[in-house]
Amino acid sequence: MSYKIALDGLDRDAATSLTEQIVSRFRRAIDGNDLAPGEKLPTTRAMAEQAGVNHLTAVRAYRRLAEEGYVTATVGRGTFVRRVPPSAAAAATGTDWQTAVLPEERISYPNEMLAESFRLPADPDVISLATGWPDPELYPVDVLAEITADIFRDLRGEALNYVDPVGVADLRAELAKRGRAEGFAESPDEIVITSGARQGLDLVSRAVVSPGDVVAVESPTFVGALSSLQATGARVIGIPVDEDGMDVSALERVLARHEVKLVAVQAACANPTGRDLSDERRERLVTLAQERSFFVLDDGVYATVRYEGAERPRLRRSAPSHVVYVDSLSKTIGGGLRLGWIAASGPLRRRLVTLKIDTDMQTTGLVQHIGARYLAAGEHEKFLAAALPVYRERRDALLESLERRLGDEVSFMHPLGGHHVWVRFDAPLDERALFAEAVRQGVGFTPGGAMTPERPEGTALRLSFALVGPEELDEGVRRLAAAVRAVRRMERAPMVAMS
Amino acid sequence: MSYKIALDGLDRDAATSLTEQIVSRFRRAIDGNDLAPGEKLPTTRAMAEQAGVNHLTAVRAYRRLAEEGYVTATVGRGTFVRRVPPSAAAAATGTDWQTAVLPEERISYPNEMLAESFRLPADPDVISLATGWPDPELYPVDVLAEITADIFRDLRGEALNYVDPVGVADLRAELAKRGRAEGFAESPDEIVITSGARQGLDLVSRAVVSPGDVVAVESPTFVGALSSLQATGARVIGIPVDEDGMDVSALERVLARHEVKLVAVQAACANPTGRDLSDERRERLVTLAQERSFFVLDDGVYATVRYEGAERPRLRRSAPSHVVYVDSLSKTIGGGLRLGWIAASGPLRRRLVTLKIDTDMQTTGLVQHIGARYLAAGEHEKFLAAALPVYRERRDALLESLERRLGDEVSFMHPLGGHHVWVRFDAPLDERALFAEAVRQGVGFTPGGAMTPERPEGTALRLSFALVGPEELDEGVRRLAAAVRAVRRMERAPMVAMS
Repeated sequence: MSYKIALDGLDRDAATSLTEQIVSRFRRAIDGNDLAPGEKLPTTRAMAEQAGVNHLTAVRAYRRLAEEGYVTATVGRGTFVRRVPPSAAAAATGTDWQTAVLPEERISYPNEMLAESFRLPADPDVISLATGWPDPELYPVDVLAEITADIFRDLRGEALNYVDPVGVADLRAELAKRGRAEGFAESPDEIVITSGARQGLDLVSRAVVSPGDVVAVESPTFVGALSSLQATGARVIGIPVDEDGMDVSALERVLARHEVKLVAVQAACANPTGRDLSDERRERLVTLAQERSFFVLDDGVYATVRYEGAERPRLRRSAPSHVVYVDSLSKTIGGGLRLGWIAASGPLRRRLVTLKIDTDMQTTGLVQHIGARYLAAGEHEKFLAAALPVYRERRDALLESLERRLGDEVSFMHPLGGHHVWVRFDAPLDERALFAEAVRQGVGFTPGGAMTPERPEGTALRLSFALVGPEELDEGVRRLAAAVRAVRRMERAPMVAMS
Repeated sequence: MSYKIALDGLDRDAATSLTEQIVSRFRRAIDGNDLAPGEKLPTTRAMAEQAGVNHLTAVRAYRRLAEEGYVTATVGRGTFVRRVPPSAAAAATGTDWQTAVLPEERISYPNEMLAESFRLPADPDVISLATGWPDPELYPVDVLAEITADIFRDLRGEALNYVDPVGVADLRAELAKRGRAEGFAESPDEIVITSGARQGLDLVSRAVVSPGDVVAVESPTFVGALSSLQATGARVIGIPVDEDGMDVSALERVLARHEVKLVAVQAACANPTGRDLSDERRERLVTLAQERSFFVLDDGVYATVRYEGAERPRLRRSAPSHVVYVDSLSKTIGGGLRLGWIAASGPLRRRLVTLKIDTDMQTTGLVQHIGARYLAAGEHEKFLAAALPVYRERRDALLESLERRLGDEVSFMHPLGGHHVWVRFDAPLDERALFAEAVRQGVGFTPGGAMTPERPEGTALRLSFALVGPEELDEGVRRLAAAVRAVRRMERAPMVAMS
């Protein structure tokens, strides 16, 4: 295959990404007619080799070019220069002008990975250990179907009508009941219904944090929390975690140097470690928040998905004005419902309501009615009692398989709850190369770098076990181990192409 | 009643609102023990009189004080200083510190009014002509209940699972079908599902507009559009509308002075006028967008709620890269479903998807499945055929009643579609005083000032007829006319108290 475009000499230290550099070389070649309309381009693998980048970067570059209208891709045939390149297309349909007008964009690495994790499960050949979804086979479908039919019958048109932006009163009352038992709220007035905990994190970030502020967050943490905090324009500082949760002494050292606005934690069954914040650290964190006037954002989405360890009251009980709590039903009865809530008080709560109205007016009423009746009927406790043993079995299977197949390569924390295992490599290896090779081998994971605000020192990754049965988990780990071995080989012989 | 707090000499030109000034005087008096715990405060009416403000301002001030924990209000008994004022409460529960930490807040007038409009329909004594909701009695409840039962049966757990953040494929395909017929999209790839058109407006505003940018918008327009555009920190310039929609010549004068990033319109059945953008203006607007590289944001939520007048293709057909379209099913089968969409192409579309993921991950899957099957079954067209004559009858009743009861006071535009009539007073009167008096008389409306980016020159208001039967509409207009007469009397004798 002849190459009409020079892909060597990419600048790895440049402000623009390798993907962007490749894209811009192709754009120039197509605009300048070095590549003619209809011409076939090298395969992603060949292009990656020529440019000296990994396979995923090549895939991204072609995808971007396709989005911009420069190339078309046909499965099984390859990638071709479009017959009508965008610069020649009519002004009415060309979208080139948009790039000049739109604000400058910074696509974060966590965000790319999040998009990736939505793409992976659709491919039947890839065992996705990247996706922290609960298993749809376990959902209480019949119970919810019956409740929904009752709602249509009882509420008629009201089932479809606008509701209070703060949330349906019955649902807030049910959540407050659990809030009193679990410690996240005392009254329905503290509850604001959101479209998933994801929206809760975003609303709290936007309500509290301004550009230039400093915020601290567990590192590693949920990609969505990172993404929302970074989108505010704040400086996001990672605080290391260990088996006892966030290292609060490390936080104190940050507090000594910065005026911190908000500290984001998951005090119980954290994502990705599955560990709890210890009693001593809980107390110290809350005292610091009160002494230094910062908000603690506690994400409790996995707090009820617990397999072992003592359940403590949620952090908010000890400092309800300083701790703002977000939670949802997404990790238990289904993320597609988008049924989440915030517990907050004071001016913050009022601002969250205003922001909620400005953002999407309110969360789907029908789903709120469903949630209210489901909780009131005590069905959620029944569901958890049935589902948790299944997830515990999968956790145990994954841990056993990791120990057996990768025990000499990695160490990992023992998760008390949640859907994930945080795995650290004893010796570092190239995270992106491992990701690309693992996908090639047929297994997906969440790269550690997507869960940390700063580029991490060692290599780590998150494996999620909730969606996958024990045997498939073992096969996934087998493929991962093969990918690790392949990357180690490549690293020992860096000049040999990946094939 | 003895007053221990001086409420005279409020500064009407100050940067802080009258409400805030009153609140801060009460705070000081309570913190300084000039008002003792448990002490009864003057009624809102007496307080309003003493401060020389309207009743609504007094209500707002007490509500704010209650939210902050300074006072408690008991229906039928009155408002009292709290026995444990917040400054004396434990540090763990006090929320005073939050105000110092949270970003500076600017509660916009449109936003206050929007919150107000959600409060009003709950009061059974007030006929709300403020609320542009469709009538729940008309919703196709049985059809949707049956579809939902089918979905649970057919999709089982998938009905509750996470879906593609861009939206469920079947729904996007159905919308693209309508897009080809109506002109807003050619392909499912252009459609991004949102939680109502409200979220569509917010995502587009955040994706396109940066602080300091200039945007133009029809004036008057939907409060939510104003609110989202103002929240970006942009300068929002209002362009007057008449019977032929936005005055594009006036827009051209603005374009000559400013680099405008986005122009927000409703090209068909606009809210609040119910009028269409004329052919000539449509063409000119699109040409300007292409020549000057700005986005046109076309909100089509009322475009299918048409009673008369020729239906034109949606604006986006003539310039798909420049026009971004938002729409929803909220104005027909129920706003509680939060089923909206954006049609966009190019880099803008890609950014909207990223922003959607960062905001709430995705719109409720269950509702998307419902929408897909409802549209595929052709039920929406059946529904519109049955519902439109009812709304048309209500429109006609309202217009007749306005002519009869307020014909000597107001002029109004004849709405071709939508749920609203835009009413202008021939001689100006105090909008806030009219709003307060109307609520006292038992009728709600949307004040014109809440729908215009700048304080309007004359007095105007929006009356919504969709939710109210013909007789109640007439009674609402009767009360409004009584309120107008009362305010005119007050204006002639301004020193006499309202009571």
